Amino acid sequence: MITSARGPRPADFTDVRVTNLSVVLRFVREHAPCSRADIAAMTGLNKATVSSLVADLMDRGMLREIGLTENRVGRPATMIVLDGAPFSAVGIEINVDYLTAVVIDLAGERLLSWRRFFPGTDAVADEAVSEVAGLARRVVNRMSREGRQVLGLAVAVPGLVDMRGAVRLAPNLGWTDVDLYGDLRRALREPEFPVEVENDANFAAMAEQRFGAFNGAQNLVYLTGEIGVGAGVVLDGRLRRGGRGYGGELGHVQIDPEGHSCRCGRVGCLEAVAGIGAVLDRAVASPTEIEPEIAQIVRLAHAGDRATLARLHRVARDLGRGVAILSNLLNPEVVILGGYYVPLAPFMLATVEEEVRLRTIAPDTGGLRIAASTLGHDAAALGAAGRVLDGVDSGRLPPSRVVPEPLPERA
Amino acid sequence: MITSARGPRPADFTDVRVTNLSVVLRFVREHAPCSRADIAAMTGLNKATVSSLVADLMDRGMLREIGLTENRVGRPATMIVLDGAPFSAVGIEINVDYLTAVVIDLAGERLLSWRRFFPGTDAVADEAVSEVAGLARRVVNRMSREGRQVLGLAVAVPGLVDMRGAVRLAPNLGWTDVDLYGDLRRALREPEFPVEVENDANFAAMAEQRFGAFNGAQNLVYLTGEIGVGAGVVLDGRLRRGGRGYGGELGHVQIDPEGHSCRCGRVGCLEAVAGIGAVLDRAVASPTEIEPEIAQIVRLAHAGDRATLARLHRVARDLGRGVAILSNLLNPEVVILGGYYVPLAPFMLATVEEEVRLRTIAPDTGGLRIAASTLGHDAAALGAAGRVLDGVDSGRLPPSRVVPEPLPERA
Repeated sequence: MITSARGPRPADFTDVRVTNLSVVLRFVREHAPCSRADIAAMTGLNKATVSSLVADLMDRGMLREIGLTENRVGRPATMIVLDGAPFSAVGIEINVDYLTAVVIDLAGERLLSWRRFFPGTDAVADEAVSEVAGLARRVVNRMSREGRQVLGLAVAVPGLVDMRGAVRLAPNLGWTDVDLYGDLRRALREPEFPVEVENDANFAAMAEQRFGAFNGAQNLVYLTGEIGVGAGVVLDGRLRRGGRGYGGELGHVQIDPEGHSCRCGRVGCLEAVAGIGAVLDRAVASPTEIEPEIAQIVRLAHAGDRATLARLHRVARDLGRGVAILSNLLNPEVVILGGYYVPLAPFMLATVEEEVRLRTIAPDTGGLRIAASTLGHDAAALGAAGRVLDGVDSGRLPPSRVVPEPLPERA
Repeated sequence: MITSARGPRPADFTDVRVTNLSVVLRFVREHAPCSRADIAAMTGLNKATVSSLVADLMDRGMLREIGLTENRVGRPATMIVLDGAPFSAVGIEINVDYLTAVVIDLAGERLLSWRRFFPGTDAVADEAVSEVAGLARRVVNRMSREGRQVLGLAVAVPGLVDMRGAVRLAPNLGWTDVDLYGDLRRALREPEFPVEVENDANFAAMAEQRFGAFNGAQNLVYLTGEIGVGAGVVLDGRLRRGGRGYGGELGHVQIDPEGHSCRCGRVGCLEAVAGIGAVLDRAVASPTEIEPEIAQIVRLAHAGDRATLARLHRVARDLGRGVAILSNLLNPEVVILGGYYVPLAPFMLATVEEEVRLRTIAPDTGGLRIAASTLGHDAAALGAAGRVLDGVDSGRLPPSRVVPEPLPERA
């Protein structure tokens, strides 16, 4: 009987074979091309074990040999690399007015990027879920036609997602208690591959950690700069969601008790004083208006328009107050500003940095860097797809490849 | 060559034997008494490996056999338990006016609790470090005389501690850039056992997680209620310190832009509006005055004194604003109020809870519970000692048993 731990547990008591398979897979992901002897030397696994693990991963089609080394001391060794192409990881992002799908292979190479119109708030949740399932089905079928095994599907949602993948609250979609995980699995007829649902800021943070300019950063926070502002918090290399998965709601921390009302019903929330609504200086009714308006603000700021620059300065100061909370409480290495903060960053970043520097008690602002995202608006979908690879790397391996029965030859 | 990971790594590429030794040690810690077959069945290690690992841990004096089982199906098996007594883990807490030492054995049983006068702010850092080293030496010698191997020493400091154990800033001690780790190791003549230095709130959080009323909670924040207010943040079962170890500074997040000045030079910090200075409604010059004054406030509150209750209500409301930041951003299962918040909790907790409930966007306040600590004022020292056990459980095993020569004490 496993009871609750009395203290931290650095490793779970999981099946050692699966752990070792994932150790080898991750090692090859990071160090390929490499030999079986390299793997044994660096992981501490013995050579016979490594050979058996490599054979298993080759059977599954995840690794392949690429011939002998040259240029090294000792006997030539057969080099091994990741075999990315036979596999696909699917990420879908739900936004208020569009759906994004991003598919990558096992090696993280992008296979597909689609954007589709989405009724968002105009649809009831059931119809919206059907739209998402329809897109997922089209993507999965495409992968099947290309002969790629689907490793998993992950869906990013702008809202509070619980541990079972239900969306408890997504104000911008008008959703309350939508069992997106269950509905999607049913709509996809209980697929073989795993399905995961997660908050969009969380997936975007994971995208930055894997693919972004600060990839590999172990302590990183991503702030979505959309109509809402959410935080994806990565600490010690992993996303931290809190007890029920509702962490990251920096957007609803009060920044200014005298500030604007927030759509959540509270006053002076970060989202209300430093979100896109504050940049536009008005309530945002329909998200489709935003893109040209932000472009106009960027033009005005470039032209030195005083009112525009003053407004951006005010918003940046309040954003800096929010980032200073992250800085004092979490001491991240980097805070990445996403969404519409990206085009606005040239006019806001210096003020944000100054505010954070003044408000952080740690010497040298704890080493914090603040930067605009380089991943664009599909960061969350890309992070969702990356999350599927994380699952595989953590030991959620696909079953051995089903080789189709040969067709009966004609007599 | 190990380069930085491109993605999260669920397990490090550490030596598998050490990992497996620590898996067995932790299993026995949680499930003793248990048999070798139990260990094999639950960990996935094979029986021969388990026998070898158990023999190794018995050689080191960490496990012992306690005879055969009865009352179970099948052949009787030799049962194994942790052999706590031959080992000691030493925790020391530095406070402004006293030092606390707590020693526990490998099984977590308390062996010793000492409190000593400490000059605190009146001493220069060199003298203060000598005092700490002197106390450590006396504790270590006591353990040697008792025939116990010292597994490690961990020291809790009220300040910003970097990753190498240097205290960068401890305002209440008047310390800036004190290499406490290095100074202590030198003063202890480079001991065999590991030495660790950490922020006091961090160690107190670890004490709660291991020994407190919410032990085993995977997402827990501890707030020190001393002159300063610091947070120890445990997420997914582990302390999260941030990139340079400066996380947890909720005490210097601005709660009220119109609030009191803080000793850090900023305005309206949580520490200034909801720390013990705010409870006493004045600047605190010497910490020795606090204890009787808090007792007096508790008496007045019990007697229904209106001014006292109003002041505690005001402080509780501001404390609630701070806890709501934790709640929205981190979604912890429990926030534990320590230090002087403990005797004040009966008059503050309801207001704190109400404020947090109103300010948290997650349904049902994300499941958060807020509670007063049950561990008393030596939580940080106890957590420091527990941290030494964590190190052992994570694979930092002591060498085969050697009882050290006593260290020379000052003449």
